[in-house]
Amino acid sequence: MNGRPVVVRDIIRADPGVVARLRAVGVATTHEAAGRSGLLDHRLRAICPGSVVAAPAVTALCHASDNLMIHLAVECRRRGDILVVAVTSECTDGYLGELLATSLHAHGVIGAVIDAGVRDVALLREMEFPVWARAVSAQGTAKASPGSVNVPVVCAGRLVEPGDVIVADDDGVVRVPAREAAEVAERAEERVRREKGIRRQLADGALGADIYGFRDLASRLGITFAKQEPRSEEQ
Amino acid sequence: MNGRPVVVRDIIRADPGVVARLRAVGVATTHEAAGRSGLLDHRLRAICPGSVVAAPAVTALCHASDNLMIHLAVECRRRGDILVVAVTSECTDGYLGELLATSLHAHGVIGAVIDAGVRDVALLREMEFPVWARAVSAQGTAKASPGSVNVPVVCAGRLVEPGDVIVADDDGVVRVPAREAAEVAERAEERVRREKGIRRQLADGALGADIYGFRDLASRLGITFAKQEPRSEEQ
Amino acid sequence: MNGRPVVVRDIIRADPGVVARLRAVGVATTHEAAGRSGLLDHRLRAICPGSVVAAPAVTALCHASDNLMIHLAVECRRRGDILVVAVTSECTDGYLGELLATSLHAHGVIGAVIDAGVRDVALLREMEFPVWARAVSAQGTAKASPGSVNVPVVCAGRLVEPGDVIVADDDGVVRVPAREAAEVAERAEERVRREKGIRRQLADGALGADIYGFRDLASRLGITFAKQEPRSEEQ
Amino acid sequence: MNGRPVVVRDIIRADPGVVARLRAVGVATTHEAAGRSGLLDHRLRAICPGSVVAAPAVTALCHASDNLMIHLAVECRRRGDILVVAVTSECTDGYLGELLATSLHAHGVIGAVIDAGVRDVALLREMEFPVWARAVSAQGTAKASPGSVNVPVVCAGRLVEPGDVIVADDDGVVRVPAREAAEVAERAEERVRREKGIRRQLADGALGADIYGFRDLASRLGITFAKQEPRSEEQ
Amino acid sequence: MNGRPVVVRDIIRADPGVVARLRAVGVATTHEAAGRSGLLDHRLRAICPGSVVAAPAVTALCHASDNLMIHLAVECRRRGDILVVAVTSECTDGYLGELLATSLHAHGVIGAVIDAGVRDVALLREMEFPVWARAVSAQGTAKASPGSVNVPVVCAGRLVEPGDVIVADDDGVVRVPAREAAEVAERAEERVRREKGIRRQLADGALGADIYGFRDLASRLGITFAKQEPRSEEQ
Amino acid sequence: MNGRPVVVRDIIRADPGVVARLRAVGVATTHEAAGRSGLLDHRLRAICPGSVVAAPAVTALCHASDNLMIHLAVECRRRGDILVVAVTSECTDGYLGELLATSLHAHGVIGAVIDAGVRDVALLREMEFPVWARAVSAQGTAKASPGSVNVPVVCAGRLVEPGDVIVADDDGVVRVPAREAAEVAERAEERVRREKGIRRQLADGALGADIYGFRDLASRLGITFAKQEPRSEEQ
Repeated sequence: MNGRPVVVRDIIRADPGVVARLRAVGVATTHEAAGRSGLLDHRLRAICPGSVVAAPAVTALCHASDNLMIHLAVECRRRGDILVVAVTSECTDGYLGELLATSLHAHGVIGAVIDAGVRDVALLREMEFPVWARAVSAQGTAKASPGSVNVPVVCAGRLVEPGDVIVADDDGVVRVPAREAAEVAERAEERVRREKGIRRQLADGALGADIYGFRDLASRLGITFAKQEPRSEEQ
Repeated sequence: MNGRPVVVRDIIRADPGVVARLRAVGVATTHEAAGRSGLLDHRLRAICPGSVVAAPAVTALCHASDNLMIHLAVECRRRGDILVVAVTSECTDGYLGELLATSLHAHGVIGAVIDAGVRDVALLREMEFPVWARAVSAQGTAKASPGSVNVPVVCAGRLVEPGDVIVADDDGVVRVPAREAAEVAERAEERVRREKGIRRQLADGALGADIYGFRDLASRLGITFAKQEPRSEEQ
Repeated sequence: MNGRPVVVRDIIRADPGVVARLRAVGVATTHEAAGRSGLLDHRLRAICPGSVVAAPAVTALCHASDNLMIHLAVECRRRGDILVVAVTSECTDGYLGELLATSLHAHGVIGAVIDAGVRDVALLREMEFPVWARAVSAQGTAKASPGSVNVPVVCAGRLVEPGDVIVADDDGVVRVPAREAAEVAERAEERVRREKGIRRQLADGALGADIYGFRDLASRLGITFAKQEPRSEEQ
Repeated sequence: MNGRPVVVRDIIRADPGVVARLRAVGVATTHEAAGRSGLLDHRLRAICPGSVVAAPAVTALCHASDNLMIHLAVECRRRGDILVVAVTSECTDGYLGELLATSLHAHGVIGAVIDAGVRDVALLREMEFPVWARAVSAQGTAKASPGSVNVPVVCAGRLVEPGDVIVADDDGVVRVPAREAAEVAERAEERVRREKGIRRQLADGALGADIYGFRDLASRLGITFAKQEPRSEEQ
Repeated sequence: MNGRPVVVRDIIRADPGVVARLRAVGVATTHEAAGRSGLLDHRLRAICPGSVVAAPAVTALCHASDNLMIHLAVECRRRGDILVVAVTSECTDGYLGELLATSLHAHGVIGAVIDAGVRDVALLREMEFPVWARAVSAQGTAKASPGSVNVPVVCAGRLVEPGDVIVADDDGVVRVPAREAAEVAERAEERVRREKGIRRQLADGALGADIYGFRDLASRLGITFAKQEPRSEEQ
Repeated sequence: MNGRPVVVRDIIRADPGVVARLRAVGVATTHEAAGRSGLLDHRLRAICPGSVVAAPAVTALCHASDNLMIHLAVECRRRGDILVVAVTSECTDGYLGELLATSLHAHGVIGAVIDAGVRDVALLREMEFPVWARAVSAQGTAKASPGSVNVPVVCAGRLVEPGDVIVADDDGVVRVPAREAAEVAERAEERVRREKGIRRQLADGALGADIYGFRDLASRLGITFAKQEPRSEEQ
């Protein structure tokens, strides 16, 4: 909680093998396999388009316009983690730039998800340090207000607990609770297999309406089929 | 209308030759030639930057977070159509992803305009299936609510009737009513010719103020010209 | 002021050498060196990503949906200027497109910052004429309402006086008053030197917490350090 | 269409009796009875809270920051009409203030729906001239650009044809096509009767889950019922 | 979690005495006393201005445009609870109207916090059933998708667990974890006492700068004091 | 400037008689009389609807989520001033609440314009201390970052210099430079007289189209007049 700021050094992380499996299926499939839960706000955009990452979350809870807790988070990570930054009130200032990215990178952090702004984006792209953020802003931040590291946070509208799996790509960012990750990976891979067959059928011209039985559904829903309407109505 | 859901199979399309001519001039010129009418909301962004398309519209009217009608629209198109998806209330969920794009592509649909979200955007770019959408979101949709196919819809703030010409590029999306398309193409090409000469003059350093006679206009509007102000006022 | 429209031909510009030095350090560093002042609204986005410019500002104050004053601004510039367009009320229409860009380019203007929309963005990218704008919109504008050229304006939330230095890159746009530019450049270069050493340390794995002394600060702020929490609280 | 501006004097209006019946049921019920179609964007807010109106639409299509066509619409109305103003591109300027409201009121117009801004709102409230608008702004508009009166328009995301019924109250604004108004009124009144009984049951403590049979639905959807969870999961 | 929908009947509630004490101090003071944590997004607005409530939360997690779970939540409450509705993806449709409010009221629920839209707002005000919502919209919702009741949810950017205290007034909505409520109430009442004295001093003309010692702070921060500047700079 | 924080004690204020005259005409007329310049962003909303104020501005420039400079501004005012708060980056936190309002009120400040959030709004209404703000939020702010008092600031998109006249009512907030205030008041009163006559004519049923000569303008603009169109086109 904000009132009792704490930095937690060690956390329990999701299994690396499972993390790798979720990376392989990507955000959209992971989200489906997780029962359509855990998707962060779509306003987070990929600052380095084309990147795909999956990693356990190291969380930081920061004050508005203050990135002190990101600095303190650097030593609370392991190689292969991703940093997840939540803020106590909405802010678009640049919480992370080249120097912090250099430091995180040196410590093996593979990317960051920030519910605020970032800066030095040309350099972040050059460094290939992928970030998902709400805004790009050169506005710097103070380092003066207490927050926490590795506590559960709400980032971009979703709860993230330290050690949870974060998957991020051009479709956005999704969180999977560490203890559900294996089961979600299982379901995700099943879904990939199932969709492979469907994709082939669709590519060959089969109709989803037939494959999924939507014609029956349509008639149950009272949808009529017409050859051509003389002058139909708009919504 | 929403209350009487209907799927219309055959529609009257704009002439393919005219469609090609509008593609050649692009969105901005088409919009000017159409008397500055028909431009969809600028919040629709090109998911595959650099794409330019023009095509007759196949329309789908969907409920919030429900893409059933896109599935039913697949068999109501002809090669070379573009899909236009309107929603009954605002929604940023991902109405279209890789599987639907594969199906639309297999049936010759050349792109989509969606007044909501899309997902699998990395794959859409790889497939070169151009989409214009309001958001990118991995959030999937249900297939449970009745809507319509090939009825007039309001998409991103503009009326689109089935068979109308849709032109879309990096500047956005514009709609031209099928029966006005030939006349708009005519005026657009005239405009292109006229602008060619002006562009050459401007590139040679001629001033628009002289070419267009804005100096006279300026003095009629009471604009004064000064060499330098000691300390002028802000707005 | 809007009520007494005026076009000012000659302005006093920041020193070209200083402008070049600010270009070399970029937006984020310039903004820091300027005491974190002068940053324009982060909603202005780079239409040609990767561009970096610095130049004295030629300002234009336009009415909603009217770009007349941009046309009149063309002859009030010198080679190497940048155009800064403010609007009297918010508007996302396309104030600048290929023709105006051609004209500005022919007269040596190296880019534009527009607190409104632009169009022909594919062509702007092809021409490598960098623009920072609030929106992309094919909607054209009238040329009928009086405004001013080279008066102080508020653009995207910041005052810009004619001749001020504008620095713009992928991080956004910052303004430095002409008479403070040399001092800001001095401080910016100092900062670059200082950060160079810190970057090397960070890349070698040194902790910012140690370099900056944040551990002391943390304990003064009442932040506790824990090995692991059984079940900590969220924000 | 914008390119061929026209002022149409006489329009076919929905039946006054039907209009009165829709006023009696209000926006939410009308919208339901219309198959959940025709609701304008919820960003339109009631400037005079507590007002309820229903009336045939006199439409005006205006340019950005230009209200000329509202002035020309005044003589194209009948007592009891409502003015519906659409704009060709988004604008928050004040299209209507006390003088225009005085004129409209003198001609029997009972209110206005404006997909832009209004001003003099304290006076509008004093006059009890109800307006639904997207913004309040003192910014005045020009009277210089051609538009149309009494043509079909898209206002706040929905098509409105001249003579259609507009119902507006604190819940927003809905449009009913003139030729469907009688049928919609019929269904709306049925709905009111049906809801009366349900309201009484609910007020007496009956559960909607029982009245509507949602318990069966819930179990079909796989929802389980638990007495208490030790530690359940979040979304 | 979304994937395993569950309705939990019994929850552990914060102590009623503590709830009453938090109601007495209001949102702003509760939020301060909670270490500035737990404040829901300020976009939630009071539909019935002037209302002040505090109550244990009964939570419902709903799909986009589907309010089935609110219906199922009615029987999972006790007299004096407040309903908290979260959504799986952003939606402004009207999740709650007069009928549901009647039912909730009949079962002793004293208000609702909805991270989406509401309708029948004139009736809600008449009934004095206070609601905090993101939007007002007449758009109805389906009752077809599974969700959960009385599970932890993220509502308007903050975690809410069933039984937590919700305090809501014209300043917004704040959540206090049930087990921390007594301590927060303690600190809040202390704060009220302390502020009482300060308020009296301030009303008598004492300066906050003196009471809080801000003059020293100012000089430590390098703020200078000047009688009058000839021509000072803007930001 | 932010980099050299300064508190200026004495400022030159607009003439009180002129201030009173601008208050009498209100925001919309003042804005027109000022050549449609100086209107602050319409997103500032009146927290105490129905209030009308005009006063010389005492300005404060604050950091994101830090209201220290408001505290320091209290002693830099005279009876009858209004406080204008600008922020260095966008923020919706509550910069002003009951205590600060009590202090400002005790020192004769008659209201505040804040380009950020406020809290304790029920108490502000009770105290009749009028505030115009961008948001309502209970989130408190720090008192730790240097800013300035009585320097020129950009507030809600417009330059405000200390001593300028601020007029604020339900239509928003407008700034008039101190040295132009007398002239603007003159023109505003003329406008009020002129509009009085027009209002009477309009109330008697005269058409604006006739009074202002819009029929001629319409035909010059190519607008045609039609009795009735069989089926006209939408925008």
